[in-house]
Amino acid sequence: MSVKQPPAWVADAVFYQIFPDRFASSDNWEKPNGLEPWDATPSYHGYKGGDLLGVIEKLDYLVDLGINAIYFNPIFASGSNHRYHAWDYYRIDPMLGDDEIFDQLIEACHDRGIRVILDGVFNHTGRGFFQFSDVIESGQQSPYTDWYHFHSFPVDAFGRSPNYEAWWGMPALPKLNTETPQVREYLMRVAEHWIERGADGWRLDVPQEIATEGFWEEFRTRVRSINPEAYIVAEIWEDASEWISAGDRFDGTMNYLFAGYTLAFVAGERIPRHLTTNLNYPLYPALNGEEFATRMNDLIDLYPWPATLANLNLLDSHDVPRVLSLCGDDPVAVELAVVIQMTSPGAPSVYYGSEVGLTGGRDPENRKGFDWDESAWDTSILDTHRTLIKLRHDYSTLRTGSFRTHPAGPDLYVAERADESARILTVINASRVAQSASIATLTGTSFKTLYGEGGITSDGSTVRVAVAPRTAVVWRVT
Amino acid sequence: MSVKQPPAWVADAVFYQIFPDRFASSDNWEKPNGLEPWDATPSYHGYKGGDLLGVIEKLDYLVDLGINAIYFNPIFASGSNHRYHAWDYYRIDPMLGDDEIFDQLIEACHDRGIRVILDGVFNHTGRGFFQFSDVIESGQQSPYTDWYHFHSFPVDAFGRSPNYEAWWGMPALPKLNTETPQVREYLMRVAEHWIERGADGWRLDVPQEIATEGFWEEFRTRVRSINPEAYIVAEIWEDASEWISAGDRFDGTMNYLFAGYTLAFVAGERIPRHLTTNLNYPLYPALNGEEFATRMNDLIDLYPWPATLANLNLLDSHDVPRVLSLCGDDPVAVELAVVIQMTSPGAPSVYYGSEVGLTGGRDPENRKGFDWDESAWDTSILDTHRTLIKLRHDYSTLRTGSFRTHPAGPDLYVAERADESARILTVINASRVAQSASIATLTGTSFKTLYGEGGITSDGSTVRVAVAPRTAVVWRVT
Repeated sequence: MSVKQPPAWVADAVFYQIFPDRFASSDNWEKPNGLEPWDATPSYHGYKGGDLLGVIEKLDYLVDLGINAIYFNPIFASGSNHRYHAWDYYRIDPMLGDDEIFDQLIEACHDRGIRVILDGVFNHTGRGFFQFSDVIESGQQSPYTDWYHFHSFPVDAFGRSPNYEAWWGMPALPKLNTETPQVREYLMRVAEHWIERGADGWRLDVPQEIATEGFWEEFRTRVRSINPEAYIVAEIWEDASEWISAGDRFDGTMNYLFAGYTLAFVAGERIPRHLTTNLNYPLYPALNGEEFATRMNDLIDLYPWPATLANLNLLDSHDVPRVLSLCGDDPVAVELAVVIQMTSPGAPSVYYGSEVGLTGGRDPENRKGFDWDESAWDTSILDTHRTLIKLRHDYSTLRTGSFRTHPAGPDLYVAERADESARILTVINASRVAQSASIATLTGTSFKTLYGEGGITSDGSTVRVAVAPRTAVVWRVT
Repeated sequence: MSVKQPPAWVADAVFYQIFPDRFASSDNWEKPNGLEPWDATPSYHGYKGGDLLGVIEKLDYLVDLGINAIYFNPIFASGSNHRYHAWDYYRIDPMLGDDEIFDQLIEACHDRGIRVILDGVFNHTGRGFFQFSDVIESGQQSPYTDWYHFHSFPVDAFGRSPNYEAWWGMPALPKLNTETPQVREYLMRVAEHWIERGADGWRLDVPQEIATEGFWEEFRTRVRSINPEAYIVAEIWEDASEWISAGDRFDGTMNYLFAGYTLAFVAGERIPRHLTTNLNYPLYPALNGEEFATRMNDLIDLYPWPATLANLNLLDSHDVPRVLSLCGDDPVAVELAVVIQMTSPGAPSVYYGSEVGLTGGRDPENRKGFDWDESAWDTSILDTHRTLIKLRHDYSTLRTGSFRTHPAGPDLYVAERADESARILTVINASRVAQSASIATLTGTSFKTLYGEGGITSDGSTVRVAVAPRTAVVWRVT
């Protein structure tokens, strides 16, 4: 496979995003004493004690859901519950497990056909990171002063204004100096190490921040030379074409544009404004079906088709409010969003717990402990996920088939996926009234309902659809 | 072997103490950019880049010197050139090497009959240590607050008065809370880990500071159950009998009492006062031969004989000025001291470089880079070491034979070692005038000079010795 091609498996993948401290906690991995109760509202700095053995114990739940890939938020030792403050890239966080448990995790996942990608936070480290810590202690005499961008000495790492470059000026997150060859090489070896250990790829945190010439090209080449099927996906919230279209850096991006447009369509004015301050993806303005179709077409045109198929199509994540909360607690809006997510090009990514209706606003409320008591679950939302994920697995059309939309008036979204095996139509009426329309651009005489309920007829030349308010239907067309 | 007995090999050992940043630097281990020049006067915080491959490359030098054991100052990742500020007990400091190089080191040493003991700094860590770092970042919500002794939150780790217990009140060195079972267990596993990896024992930094009931007893039991010949030696500068006599904690101690008495005798008033401020071992008052003999007898009576044989008899270390500097740069005083060291009960410990006359006062001057250019060496001091170490290896008498002194007037020190194979007499005249004396308590008719030059005769009932000023002689007596 050319190093520039995304790995083929990604288009067939349904990802599950696990925030390790909050997904599942095993009784068989010892925890420190000062944990927060699992079911308490999360605090900003507290830990709940999720771990990797806990994940292994829940893999069958994920298999049942139809998951075949996991994106883990950071799992390396870090002085923060989200573990984005890297302390040691080579060590599994001791609260999560150890090297042996990592091996077990990889084996248990691979045995079940689940691929694993890790979160690579390479732009910055935590303040406790080895080389930074040495400069704090040894000052200008430290041999590691060229690992960061220090403006003066001694280092002022705990005041208000760090005297070094830091991510968003936050003193806790000093920016690595990737212009220093040893730093660059160090990060490359970290990337190689975990791929050698069995990871199937990297999700890269804020990769745009690393502007060092050739850095990501080298990263890609080295990672892919170890595992030619490794997936490298960027966290780029806006138009990522500069970063992914050439295929020489990232296979795809975390598709927040997709999330924003989808929610602006299915939830629209329901989206609670107080949850969305400063969120930089397009939850506004509210979109009708026609507008949403335009956005979807534009989005799909934004990238080469292979990159589109290699995007992570998410509805929420650890960085944004839960989809149910963003939808103003309307489970129907979530259903419509999931139908779109599971029938669109790009690998769906389900944020742990959102499939059972877990709610939560901004960080830290969006990082609750997963409640394993099924009586607490919204089984309707869960069934929607299971059903649609199964549909996606059943039809290559939904994974790799071509995409187009059909004009059907202002309030219907009509999207067609097609390949040699099938044509599949997704029709969404997100409005508050029943909608019907003729779809002049669509051909077909026979329709099989794959999901939902609605009317579709053909008089031999024109197809007409009729869909109740707030309803999604998926038909197979022949 | 009973867990309470020191391992037999220690009495036969001649140790070499290596300060890893300063002993030898290999071209085959990559270094960070900001190193100090090897031959520049050391700064307090700078690094010179010694490493473990460098040690491996110099092992044949140590074999030639007669060394069969190495005590390494800390080798684990640390934010300080001396590496007493632990950052990770499980990681070889990346400037020194890695796990693979550690394996090579152990193998290369063991192949040459050299045992290796490591420096265990378990009372406190550095501020960058994982759990401490987490509490800095996560505050009271950290699950690790019980790993240290915090008085309040948030942690003030970089001000003048730490709000937690710290070694000597130094904010950089927070004291671990060994009363917390998880901390205790963590440290036990660290100790076990490196013994499992091949280390032959632990030198324990300030072990008196850990007062947790049963801590060191458990440490000993667990370490010795992995390696029944592991050596556990304490850094206790004063009377260590409370800690070593029962044999249930440490085999012996770093014998600073021996160092102090010996230097007070051989160097006496030569010892430069400006180098010794606050040094807490008995360099003063100056001692004559008779007084020194009294101190030596008292010192040997202080401990059970097995513990005496398991003490580390040093003349200097990384914590005190170099022996040559303490002797006012008088190489003859060093010679006398080395003769005493190599002929006394207890394992001699040579601080790297002192055997070639490396000088240096207080930290950091006592931690110079070892100059591998032989033209810079004091070959006379080196020859003294080689000769005396060989003598010690040749005669079990000097290693495990009984010890007594013989009265011989105020200015002569006369010590006899004896076992079934030989009786060996060490006579030191540290004064500025020739000394002669009858030794009423000594029997013997035939004398073979093993080291040095002096007069010894017997009229059949009384032995008389005559020794020039500032001279040491070793005789075999039959």
